[in-house]
Formats: sequence, C-alpha cells, structure tokens
Amino acid sequence: MIGVMGPGATATVQEQQQAYELGRGIAQRGWVLLTGGRNVGVMDAANRGAKQAQGVTVGILPDGDRHSLSTAVDIPIITDMGSARNNINVLSSDVVVACGMGPGTASEVALAIKNGKPVVLLNQNSETQAFFTNLSAHPIAIAITPADAILLIQNVINANP
Amino acid sequence: MIGVMGPGATATVQEQQQAYELGRGIAQRGWVLLTGGRNVGVMDAANRGAKQAQGVTVGILPDGDRHSLSTAVDIPIITDMGSARNNINVLSSDVVVACGMGPGTASEVALAIKNGKPVVLLNQNSETQAFFTNLSAHPIAIAITPADAILLIQNVINANP
Amino acid sequence: MIGVMGPGATATVQEQQQAYELGRGIAQRGWVLLTGGRNVGVMDAANRGAKQAQGVTVGILPDGDRHSLSTAVDIPIITDMGSARNNINVLSSDVVVACGMGPGTASEVALAIKNGKPVVLLNQNSETQAFFTNLSAHPIAIAITPADAILLIQNVINANP
Amino acid sequence: MIGVMGPGATATVQEQQQAYELGRGIAQRGWVLLTGGRNVGVMDAANRGAKQAQGVTVGILPDGDRHSLSTAVDIPIITDMGSARNNINVLSSDVVVACGMGPGTASEVALAIKNGKPVVLLNQNSETQAFFTNLSAHPIAIAITPADAILLIQNVINANP
Repeated sequence: MIGVMGPGATATVQEQQQAYELGRGIAQRGWVLLTGGRNVGVMDAANRGAKQAQGVTVGILPDGDRHSLSTAVDIPIITDMGSARNNINVLSSDVVVACGMGPGTASEVALAIKNGKPVVLLNQNSETQAFFTNLSAHPIAIAITPADAILLIQNVINANP
Repeated sequence: MIGVMGPGATATVQEQQQAYELGRGIAQRGWVLLTGGRNVGVMDAANRGAKQAQGVTVGILPDGDRHSLSTAVDIPIITDMGSARNNINVLSSDVVVACGMGPGTASEVALAIKNGKPVVLLNQNSETQAFFTNLSAHPIAIAITPADAILLIQNVINANP
Repeated sequence: MIGVMGPGATATVQEQQQAYELGRGIAQRGWVLLTGGRNVGVMDAANRGAKQAQGVTVGILPDGDRHSLSTAVDIPIITDMGSARNNINVLSSDVVVACGMGPGTASEVALAIKNGKPVVLLNQNSETQAFFTNLSAHPIAIAITPADAILLIQNVINANP
Repeated sequence: MIGVMGPGATATVQEQQQAYELGRGIAQRGWVLLTGGRNVGVMDAANRGAKQAQGVTVGILPDGDRHSLSTAVDIPIITDMGSARNNINVLSSDVVVACGMGPGTASEVALAIKNGKPVVLLNQNSETQAFFTNLSAHPIAIAITPADAILLIQNVINANP
C-alpha cells in the first residue's frame, strides 16, 4: 500500500498532474493507492490516475460521512477524526510520498518519520528537503518526477520484501 | 461495505462457523467485508469465509503494526487507536452485523445505533435483542442464521440504493 | 478522576437532577469530575453540580472547537474525534458511572468493561443491569441514588488505593 | 491553556532547562500547561517547572495506561491513540510553543498551523523557522528565550481576549 499525501483545495495544477501520474504509476505496478480520500487536489488526482490504470484505491476520510469523498476511491474509510486521521494514513502505508506541501502534508511526513516509515519527497524545494532530512535518522528519498518516485518506491519495496 | 463485528479470542466455535458463512455470503453478493482485522475469532473467520468466495476484505486494526493481522485481510488499515477504532468500523460500514457478543462488540452495536447505521443482530439472546432494540429509534433486524442475515442486509441495501 | 456518562439533549429531568447531585458529591469528596463536556443533559448537569461544590471539572469534547462546551467545565479537551472520544473518556476515568442510558452511554459502559474499568450503573432498569452484568467478567456495581453511587465509588477507590 | 511541545527522550539538557523555565513562566501567569504528559524530555521538564510555581498541568498521554506519566501532571488524559493524540494536543491549546524539534514536535507545529492555532517557535534554527513560516498563512512568533516566549504568548492572549 503506497500513500500519496498532498494539498487539497490549494494544490497547484502541476501538483495535480504529478499526483495523477503518480497514481497511475502506482496502479501499473500493482500496488494499492492510499490517500486522504477527499474529492480535491492531490488526493483526488492521484485516485483518478490510479483508476485510469485499473488500480485499487483506498481513501481515509477525515469526515464522518461521504460528502467529500473522491469518486475515484474504491474503499472509503470514514474516520470522523479530522486531522488525527493523518496518523492512520502513514501507519497504513508501506511508503509515504509527499506531492506538494502544506500543513497537513507536513504533519504526515513528520508522522511518517516518527513512525519509521520510508518517505519519498516529490518535487519539493531545498528548504523542505533540508528540514525533513534533518528530522530523520534515516535517509529521505528525493524525487524530481513521478517516474523517479515510482523507482524509489520500488527500491524500498525491494529492500523490504 | 458490510461490517461484521464479534468477539476475538473468546468467540465460540459456533460463532466462528457463523462468521465464516456470513463472510462467504457477503463475498458471494459482491459486497466488501469490513472487520476489526485481527487473526482471531469472528474477525478472522469472517475474512476467511469471504476469501473462500473470492471477496475483498478490509481490516481496521487496533494496533500500530501488523503483528495481529488476519492473513485473510486484503486491505489492512493500521490505526494504533485501540478500541477507539471501533467508531471507524461502524462509520465505514453500510450495515453492521453482530455475530457473537462481548464488550467490544457491544460498543460497536451501540456506536452503530448512535451513528444511525442499520444493525443486524445474528443469533443473539433475547436480553441482548431487547437491550439494543430499546436503545434504538429505528428497528433492529434480528437474524437466526447467516443466511437470514444476508437477506436482511440485502433488504437494507434495497431500501437505500 | 471519576467519569460521569449519560445522555445529552435527550436526558430526562430526573437524570439531570441525579447528575447534578453526583457531580456535587464527587467534588465534595475531592475527586476530579470527567464528562463528555457538552453543554446539555447529564454532562452539563454533573459539571454544574461539581462547580457548586468548588470541584475541578474536565470535559472531553467530541467537536473540533468549543462551541458546544459546558460553561461549568474548567479543563476542556478538544478532540475533533466524534464518538471515538468515548474511549478516551473511559480510559481517563478511574471509575465510570452511567447516569441515564442512550447509545453513546451504552458504548462507554461497554468500552469501560472492555478496558477493565470499574463501572457503577445509577438508576438503570433491570434489562440494562442484566445486559452489562453478563458482558463483564467482574461485578458491576448497582446504585439507586447518587448517594449510593458515591459510596460505591469510594469502595472502588478504597480497594485500589 | 498553553501547549508546550518538544522532544521526549532525545531532548537536550538546554531544551529541558528552557522547558522548565517555560512551564514555570506559564504557571506564574496563571495559565494552565498542556503537554504530551510523558515522564521524559521537554514534557516532563515543563510540567516540573509549572508545579514549582504551583500551576495546573494537563498531560495528553499517547498510551493506554499511566506507566509513562510524568509525576508532575495533575490531570492525565489517557488516549491510547499513539501519535494521533498530537492533534488533540494542538486543538486543546490556545497557543502552541515548540521547545526543541523532532518528528513528533514537527507534526504538532504543522497541525497547529493546519488548525489555525497561534504558534511560538522557541530557540529554533533558521531552517526550521523558514520551513514553518512558509507553511503558514499567518505570522509565526519567534522566541530566543523562555521569557521571550512568555511575552509572545501574552501578546496572543491580549489580541484574542
């Protein structure tokens, strides 16, 4: 299960495009995609990309019902826990990829490091890379393109079969 | 998504047999099975029944890792929230079925009623039936066999398409 | 820390009166009162009773802000977790008292039993008493009046100093 | 209620000294101190500082029991939610102060920004200051000493009476 985290309504067009490609690549490799499940931004785009490649998609919603659910999520998990669900997102993912950055995404990357989960930072600025690299006892993988990110995820999976 | 709730290590042989049949019937109808995900009791039996019929199984684990995961769960969600995850179980289920009874299961039936989720009580004693029926503003469905329960779930789905 | 659980907006006048007396008795003994923190029903009445006797009150809110907070809560804890916060209520209480009954309260009594917490049922009908007594490996204390409940709480504290 | 967040077992001596002074200053102003409640690092030191000045201390524990509780916590809240409790820490605080930095603390600062809570960064390096400042739509307060932090908290309280 590969977690893709990123901004919702504030995601840029480029971030959504990269999330779409990332979701498609994850599905093409036969991995299950996990996101925050909402119908906006990186979450929605990654799920749509995964479905375009016939993947399986899991969405961990912060809300108590499905009103904000992405239509491209197969398995919605309704938590009613707000941002406390971010910890479930990272614990349930074998690898956490950050596509775009915002406060929620930053909390997820930090929680992934806290829980010892492998992290891939996609297309992040040098300040963000430096901040999280310093925070982590283990190397943080740095990707420029979604294709890079897929290769780095594959490396993690190969190293932890 | 149909939630099957019931005791773990304290489940009786009959409860496990009924959970197995219930899981199989859920999968045969093409529904997704949701349980608490652990490798014991009703959870494990329902998941094994569903996999025997090529179903899809989701397990919402109370633990922070997979050490207690049923091998028949396809999609494990790792919450690290102990029994607080019981609310996620019921919110994520379209119908909640109780197979066997214990404190955890009782909390899930109560939370299902609290959240307005349809409940099916399978093979429960009259005291349990009376307690939950009194607690609920809506009728509680009563099943004697797993086959009954499947019909009652179908009724709920037909009424809420 | 003594937890008092009971219905919100659906609490009867008698339940609110008993909750008020219970809160006052808890404060008079020097114990801290814990409730679900909302400004309705048993929660609000117990907090007001405790403040009338200069007690300390803790409220574990289901919401993400203070809009529903009882004005008689000293220490509000904001969870944004809905009914999943019920598990925090019981884990944080040394004794759990149920005053009135509804689906949320039933989930709290069940979770208290699940977590091995001492339970006092105040003014419950025989069906409710029987249901929870059967659910528990340990005896469930039965009180008719708030004064009874205070004595039963004192017994538990004496037995677990 | 003022939240002080910082590393546990990995906190430096200086961070613990600053946390102690911060806790003392918070108590001297009559504010309630909220921490993660454990008996190590910044949490424990801040609580001890607050008790030295006769303050009230609230600890939101990640564990399901009190085995790791700081002896300087008056009001322990037992969540059994691991790092998901970090969101409760920030939601329950009127101001969040970060003293020292680690993955858990970073998640709390990010969640505070996400939830629109005022943040004070105490004695953080320029990279950390830049990362969180960029993440936030509102200014992030920067303190060099615990006394600075107390003044900045006072400013926030004055601005939001």
